[in-house]
Amino acid sequence: MEIRVVKKILAANEGVADENREMFARAGVYVINLMSSPGSGKTTLLERTLERLSGEMGIAVIEGDIRTTLDAERLNRFGAPIVQINTEPFGGDCHLEAAAIKTAVMELDLGKIDLLVIENVGNLVCPAEFVVGEDRKMVVISVAEGEDKPLKYPLMFRECGTAVINKTDLVEVLEFPIDRLRKNILQIRPDMKIIETSARTGAGIDEWCAHIKALVEGKKKN
Amino acid sequence: MEIRVVKKILAANEGVADENREMFARAGVYVINLMSSPGSGKTTLLERTLERLSGEMGIAVIEGDIRTTLDAERLNRFGAPIVQINTEPFGGDCHLEAAAIKTAVMELDLGKIDLLVIENVGNLVCPAEFVVGEDRKMVVISVAEGEDKPLKYPLMFRECGTAVINKTDLVEVLEFPIDRLRKNILQIRPDMKIIETSARTGAGIDEWCAHIKALVEGKKKN
Repeated sequence: MEIRVVKKILAANEGVADENREMFARAGVYVINLMSSPGSGKTTLLERTLERLSGEMGIAVIEGDIRTTLDAERLNRFGAPIVQINTEPFGGDCHLEAAAIKTAVMELDLGKIDLLVIENVGNLVCPAEFVVGEDRKMVVISVAEGEDKPLKYPLMFRECGTAVINKTDLVEVLEFPIDRLRKNILQIRPDMKIIETSARTGAGIDEWCAHIKALVEGKKKN
Repeated sequence: MEIRVVKKILAANEGVADENREMFARAGVYVINLMSSPGSGKTTLLERTLERLSGEMGIAVIEGDIRTTLDAERLNRFGAPIVQINTEPFGGDCHLEAAAIKTAVMELDLGKIDLLVIENVGNLVCPAEFVVGEDRKMVVISVAEGEDKPLKYPLMFRECGTAVINKTDLVEVLEFPIDRLRKNILQIRPDMKIIETSARTGAGIDEWCAHIKALVEGKKKN
């Protein structure tokens, strides 16, 4: 009974995600669904991204949080349009669904946007189950979280095309086995694009921004 | 419709949790439901706890993971009984429910156990919604996760009686505002018992173990 209901919810979500996908395609907007555990550094990575790229392309952000607008406030100074979704009124949902994205996008002028980044609720489990109409899912994992996480949360890493290994400035103090993390990621998803960054120090941000630009330009050409 | 189903699931879970609670009370077992984001250091904290306390009391562990027995293997060398629950066969559940605990406990001889620690699935959202019959919920938060997390994930911090601030060995390198984290925790739950630890270096483990012993002995007296 419970399983049947869950399947119906997933199917309904996929229908709305398809509508979103068509809308983004018509407007030529590349959409990233950015996911991670709480505190992996998604928002700091976005700060660096807006800093670097907002002069070169139109960027908008949808911020998913159970509660608070803390992240949206951090991003506000870059002048990019930001829409906040708080999931608490809907029961404190642990993930964003396609319908919430559809509603949030109404606040945006898609004609002026090349890249839409959806910062999902901090959760390494549930968001991976819900497509929202994105071109690519990406996961951020901080080295403070441990090298075993891709094996323990395989769906997230299977669903994503890009993995950002963040907080590399802590590798030394943690004696962190970054090669083992890379191996574990590739075991779950052999074609994963892996980028190492420290959003705090700026290391790796060049490579990250080049990756984003290539994806956005690739969609424009098609 | 969806909300009604969710309410039914929660009510059914509470019924089973009550049965678990009676069973634990009859056997005089103190039960901790230990929760956190992925990679906050729950398992390392448990390693230190078993190392220190397993000579003084009977301890058992239930390990909740979506997949793998990696954590159970890490804890195995201490000789305490460990039961692994993998939620993946049930759809990759992002939390443990009371029924899963009831089944897992059948593998344990409760007469020999004073303390049962349930290490929940790494997730700062969903596990907080499901009681399993525990005496106390506890949350581990690593300083690498950021000081804003209690405000962004309030239900977790509202539900817990003890918060462990872990990875304090990183406070300096991260220039981490630990006082602000404490303030944010107390804003959500004013009577929270807060303990600072570095499970890696052993700092704070004395205070943590004393807290656990006081709770277990407190239940025995009643």
